Amino acid sequence: MQLHSPDSTQPPVQALEWCSNHLRLLDQRYLPETVVWVECHSVSEVAAAIVDGVVQDSVAVGLVAAYGIALAARTIGQADDWIAALEADFALLTKAHPASAHLEWVMSVLDSRLRRLRSSETDVPELLAQAAINLHDSDLETSRTTGRLGAQVIRRHARQPQKFLTLGSAGTVLKAAHAAGLVEQVYLCASAAPGTTQLVHWELGRDEVPVAVHMTGAAGQLMKADNANWVVVGAQRIAANGDVINDLGTYTLAVLAMHHGLRFMVVASSAAFDLALENADELEHTDPLLQRGGQLAMDVTPADLIDVIVTERGVVERPDENRIAELLSHRRLH
Amino acid sequence: MQLHSPDSTQPPVQALEWCSNHLRLLDQRYLPETVVWVECHSVSEVAAAIVDGVVQDSVAVGLVAAYGIALAARTIGQADDWIAALEADFALLTKAHPASAHLEWVMSVLDSRLRRLRSSETDVPELLAQAAINLHDSDLETSRTTGRLGAQVIRRHARQPQKFLTLGSAGTVLKAAHAAGLVEQVYLCASAAPGTTQLVHWELGRDEVPVAVHMTGAAGQLMKADNANWVVVGAQRIAANGDVINDLGTYTLAVLAMHHGLRFMVVASSAAFDLALENADELEHTDPLLQRGGQLAMDVTPADLIDVIVTERGVVERPDENRIAELLSHRRLH
Repeated sequence: MQLHSPDSTQPPVQALEWCSNHLRLLDQRYLPETVVWVECHSVSEVAAAIVDGVVQDSVAVGLVAAYGIALAARTIGQADDWIAALEADFALLTKAHPASAHLEWVMSVLDSRLRRLRSSETDVPELLAQAAINLHDSDLETSRTTGRLGAQVIRRHARQPQKFLTLGSAGTVLKAAHAAGLVEQVYLCASAAPGTTQLVHWELGRDEVPVAVHMTGAAGQLMKADNANWVVVGAQRIAANGDVINDLGTYTLAVLAMHHGLRFMVVASSAAFDLALENADELEHTDPLLQRGGQLAMDVTPADLIDVIVTERGVVERPDENRIAELLSHRRLH
Repeated sequence: MQLHSPDSTQPPVQALEWCSNHLRLLDQRYLPETVVWVECHSVSEVAAAIVDGVVQDSVAVGLVAAYGIALAARTIGQADDWIAALEADFALLTKAHPASAHLEWVMSVLDSRLRRLRSSETDVPELLAQAAINLHDSDLETSRTTGRLGAQVIRRHARQPQKFLTLGSAGTVLKAAHAAGLVEQVYLCASAAPGTTQLVHWELGRDEVPVAVHMTGAAGQLMKADNANWVVVGAQRIAANGDVINDLGTYTLAVLAMHHGLRFMVVASSAAFDLALENADELEHTDPLLQRGGQLAMDVTPADLIDVIVTERGVVERPDENRIAELLSHRRLH
C-alpha cells in the first residue's frame, strides 16, 4: 500500500511515505535544488536517517520513528513481551534526536499501546504499522487545522498582504496564509538545521508562495528597512511556561522581533508541549535538549518574547503556564 | 622587492604582499583550511580579485586597489595627462567594492597626488608604487595603534579575561586584547562576507587566540547563556553621525548586544569616516553602499547602538556628530 503517490496529479506535500514494507523519505539535505528519496527498510536505517538529517522537521522525525518501530516489530515477528523485545529499538530512536518532543510523544504513544495489548491482538507488527499510519493521518489533519488557525490569527491583525520571516517548520501556517491572500513575501532565514529551511523552501515554492532566502544575520536589516510584520517559527519542544526550544536562530529572531515591533508566532503540534519541563530558559548549552549530534543546535526563546502559540487544539496568546494548561485541558477540536 | 616574506621566521599576518612587479593576495575564500596565494599582474586582475572576494577586508581592499593603480601606471609608462590616462582604472577599482570607504579614500589620496605632480616628477609609475607602499606601511602602523587603543578601552571596563563576539575585520583589537591577557574566548559569527570571517579566523588562530565559529543566528543564545561581554566589529563606512555600514549581520549583533547588555565596539581606520554622508540609517536596500555584486551585503547599525568607535586617531565613546568631528580635527597620533 502506498498512501501518497508521488506521481498523483495533485500530491500533498509529504516528506515521508509509508510503502507497506518500507519508508520513503524526502531527503531534506538536498532540497530545494534536488529531490532525492531515501528508502528505509529497517529500524537502524530509520535511526540513521534521523541522525544524518535526512529528516529534520520535528513532527516528521516523530512519524518516521513510529514507522521505524513498526519495521523493528516485523523483524521480530513474534514475542511474548513486546515491551522488552522492542526496548533497544525505542531507545535507539529516542536518542536519535533528543530535542524533539514530538518524537518523544510518538514513542510514548506506541509504548502505551503495547502496554494495553489484549491477548486477542496477536499481529503486533501490523498493529504497530496501523498505529503509525493513524499518527500520520492525524498529523495531516493537525497541519490543516493549525494552518487554518494560524491564518485566522494573522488576518485578525491585518487583512492586507504582509511580510513574514521564518526559519522553517512553520510552512503549514504560511501556506494557509498565502491561500488566504495574506502573504506579500516570506523571508526564509537559514537556521542551524539547514534541512528544515530547505524543506519549507521547497514546500513554499511548490505552492508558489513568494519566498527569498537570507542568512539569519540579515534578519535585523530586513526587519528595520523592509517593514516585515511577523516572525513565524516552529518548535521542537515547549515548556509548561511557554519557553520554546527550537532550531538555533529562533531566539535571535525573537529578540529582533521585539526590538522592531514584529509579532512572533510559534507553530507546533500540541505534542510539542512538555509539561514536565517547568521552564527552559535556564538550560545549559550542554543540555541534551539543546544538542544534535553533539553540537549546540537549539536555542531557547523565553515565553515573554512570544505573542502567540498556534496548535491544532487552539491558540494561546501571550503564553504562560495557566493559559497553556487551559489549552491542553480542552478536547481536541477534531 | 618583497616587503613581507611568507617564510620569514615571525612574519606579520599580512593578507597582501607587494612583490615589486606584482601583488600577492591571500585568498580569503579558502581560509582558514587552505592558504592559497593569488598573483595579480595587472589592474584588471586586481579588480577581479576584489569583485570575486579574494580580498574582502575593508582596509585590504583599499590597499590592493592602490597597488592596482600602480600596476596600471606601469602599463601606460608615460603620459602627458595622468589623471585622464588612469581615469578608467580609477573607475574600475572604485566600482569593484562600492561600500568600502577605505577604497574610496585610497583612490582620492592617489588622485590628489597626481594632481600635485611636479614637472620634475617624471617616473609616475614608480611614484604611485611608492605611494601604495607608503599607504601599506601606514596601515600596519594604524593597525598597531588601533589595537593598542582598543585593548585599553577593554581593560578600562574589566581586567579579567572576557568573552567577545565578532564578525571579523576587528582582528587587530582582538589580537592586542589577547596579548594583554584580556581574552577568554572569541566567538566568530559567520557574516555575509565569509572571507572576512575566514581571514580573522586564520589570523586569530595563528596568534593562538581561543576562537570558535558560529552562525550569526546563534549569537542570541551565546549572549544569553554564555556571559559574553563585548561585540567587536569592523566598519566599511561610518557616517558623520556615527551610523556604521558594515557586513550584513553587524546590525543584528548590535540589537542583540543592547538587549543583553554587552558593549558594542566598532574598529576602523579613520579613513572609514565619510563626512559627506550625514547619516546612513535611512539607506534603501538597493543603495550601492549596501550592495556587493548586486546583492544586499551590508547593513546599517545606527550610532545609538554603538558604545565606542576605535580608530588610530583615538577613541569616540557614544559617538555622535560632534564627538566624531572633534576626533577628526585632532592631529594623527603617529
